[in-house]
Amino acid sequence: MIEYELHLPLTLDSDIRNLMANAYGALLHEKERGVTGYYTLPEESMLLVQELINEHTFAPFDAIALYGIGGSSLGTKAIDAALRPIRQAKNIVYFENPDPRTIESNYRKLAGKEVLHVVISKSGRTIETLSQFKASLAYFGLDPKKDAKRLAVISDVDSQLHRFAEEFGIKSFAIPHNVGGRFSVLSAVGIVPLTLAGYDTAAILMAAQEMMERFWAMHEEHILQKAVFIARNWHRYPMNVLFSYADSLENFNKWYVQLWGESLGKIDRTGQRVGPTPIGHIGAVDQHSFLQLLMQGPKDKTVTFIKVEDFGMDAKIPDLKLPYLTSSDFVNDVSFATLIDAECDATKDALLHEGVPVDIITLPRLDEAALGELVVYYELLTSAVGALLEIDTYDQPGVELGKKILRERFADA
Amino acid sequence: MIEYELHLPLTLDSDIRNLMANAYGALLHEKERGVTGYYTLPEESMLLVQELINEHTFAPFDAIALYGIGGSSLGTKAIDAALRPIRQAKNIVYFENPDPRTIESNYRKLAGKEVLHVVISKSGRTIETLSQFKASLAYFGLDPKKDAKRLAVISDVDSQLHRFAEEFGIKSFAIPHNVGGRFSVLSAVGIVPLTLAGYDTAAILMAAQEMMERFWAMHEEHILQKAVFIARNWHRYPMNVLFSYADSLENFNKWYVQLWGESLGKIDRTGQRVGPTPIGHIGAVDQHSFLQLLMQGPKDKTVTFIKVEDFGMDAKIPDLKLPYLTSSDFVNDVSFATLIDAECDATKDALLHEGVPVDIITLPRLDEAALGELVVYYELLTSAVGALLEIDTYDQPGVELGKKILRERFADA
Repeated sequence: MIEYELHLPLTLDSDIRNLMANAYGALLHEKERGVTGYYTLPEESMLLVQELINEHTFAPFDAIALYGIGGSSLGTKAIDAALRPIRQAKNIVYFENPDPRTIESNYRKLAGKEVLHVVISKSGRTIETLSQFKASLAYFGLDPKKDAKRLAVISDVDSQLHRFAEEFGIKSFAIPHNVGGRFSVLSAVGIVPLTLAGYDTAAILMAAQEMMERFWAMHEEHILQKAVFIARNWHRYPMNVLFSYADSLENFNKWYVQLWGESLGKIDRTGQRVGPTPIGHIGAVDQHSFLQLLMQGPKDKTVTFIKVEDFGMDAKIPDLKLPYLTSSDFVNDVSFATLIDAECDATKDALLHEGVPVDIITLPRLDEAALGELVVYYELLTSAVGALLEIDTYDQPGVELGKKILRERFADA
Repeated sequence: MIEYELHLPLTLDSDIRNLMANAYGALLHEKERGVTGYYTLPEESMLLVQELINEHTFAPFDAIALYGIGGSSLGTKAIDAALRPIRQAKNIVYFENPDPRTIESNYRKLAGKEVLHVVISKSGRTIETLSQFKASLAYFGLDPKKDAKRLAVISDVDSQLHRFAEEFGIKSFAIPHNVGGRFSVLSAVGIVPLTLAGYDTAAILMAAQEMMERFWAMHEEHILQKAVFIARNWHRYPMNVLFSYADSLENFNKWYVQLWGESLGKIDRTGQRVGPTPIGHIGAVDQHSFLQLLMQGPKDKTVTFIKVEDFGMDAKIPDLKLPYLTSSDFVNDVSFATLIDAECDATKDALLHEGVPVDIITLPRLDEAALGELVVYYELLTSAVGALLEIDTYDQPGVELGKKILRERFADA
């Protein structure tokens, strides 16, 4: 199990305890009233994994083309990127940004492969996703009817995309009404492509479910404690930096940025604009980029470290003494995993010395269990902060104006 | 040439004009006194390019292993990533983070190649860089003396790393004393690996030199104007988001984050902690992640857009009408380049509507000329903001404590 260590200036007095209880109560209310459906996904999606394992609808494939953006891709990508270095899985090629160079490069990656095309959009209307899907139909010469077995759709059952799938006999998976994109990685949105690629999604869901149960049993109170600290202090600390000490967590950082940014950047019920800004960094590399600002810049950030105890590799720095290069000999015969961990600890200590509020999330290994738990940890934390800020954590009204302007631009043309 | 468009609430009255003149004067002073040497790099490095083109020291190679972190890798990586989609160049494999999984993956990428190993460290002491270089010597069975032609060093001429190179007859390139890592991409640090990889670095330097000359001739005053706005308003807008609308600019964003973060996150001469926080995002994809927060969260951010006018590709969304999927037909027969550009414009308009201070950097193409100019633009902007904040833009004292703690940890063990 993951270890959570808080170094936050917060005294657990009765005020704080009350706020923690309020947040817990608010989440329980959300769960019971179905305000959001993500709380029950780990259990529900187990059935989906079984169904997928016995699924014989699809033509044989050796790569997945995933059409999706934001909540429809970030969670899958986070887990895919973190597990790929240690597992065998079919390649997933992501059609997210409509950057023409990326699209071209994706086509090169898929050349000569048998491809399953998976189109993911909760609303069924996402412009980037539908456009790239249509381009691929043309590029690969696919006919929705004849090639239905090479296609899959993941969408709200009320969407036009779902109707399109039905029309052509394309296998369609449902995203529950009350699960928004950024909370959907443990729904069909993430579980279908990850299972089809060959990952052990049952293990992810099991760890997610266990974390959920421990939270409801009040055995993960640190989540509420951190949530109270962030909700009460976001004016003073308007930024939270997630400093993850493993290259393969870069996409997890991006998932966190979306989860936090879209959920917590809101106008509250008094009309005030609220929300801390999420920032992702990778250690140790970004110590050479962002640490100076953390150490000597304004004290406007909290910092969360993720570290990995066991990389499953003991590659060592050789015990090699080279003339003139003795300054690095103090890590001779030390494993790189030990070095990167020690760098995380040293950076944490340096920040604590400067009085920066810090917390540390230690993963025993970067595996299915850690990812399942970490996803639920961040979802619950986000919900708790949202409840304490008294905002609607689950909508995103701020993105509509840009979409409207985009449509108008083309209507004018 | 790049176009710069400012939508900042700033009236060009005499106060502002005075501040702009002060900043200009401070930079001129820095240049003339050699406070920093980056102002003359575009000119100086032209000679280096000539030398490299006629260089026959090295054994033949078809890939470069680059050992460097922070300022020793980010600039090279930014240019490499931006140009690679449109140019032929030898592969550069980056040994930055001491993540054991990445090191293993790097070795796989280099398997069966003739490799030139380039070790870059200004101080010559960087722990991550020396450790990985030593590991590679062991892994590839290289002997510094016998295999000197497969090695190159880029460092300060006073460093121990430079002495190591001399000892073994390894070709060594100098980083000027007064050029720090994050301002060094146009010195040997970036120019050597990029030229050896086959990029047209002369074209990059030419555009950089032209930008430098235009700035000194007072033809790029918008830089000073933006610098004044940022320096005067960083309390009100503690964050600047660089929203780049091209996937291949993600590493440029990271270079910007280091340049800005390490240069401007400082204790000023009155003892106050100052500095706006740099944040990098990629459009249109991060509209689905960060836009909600920008639109409805606290008004604590300025936003800079980078857009590319011509992607050099006219791949189109097909004129395909599918049943039920009509909501995206308004972009049928539109190129993806037009779509992504229109998304940038629509997002900019939406943010302006919310009163967010915005500026737009429009690159005609993502090529050598654009990158050379853009690098100098950001360096000058950073120096100007630093001068106005009355800080030392070029040091980074805040990173020393972590290094000290790291050494002590191993000394204790």
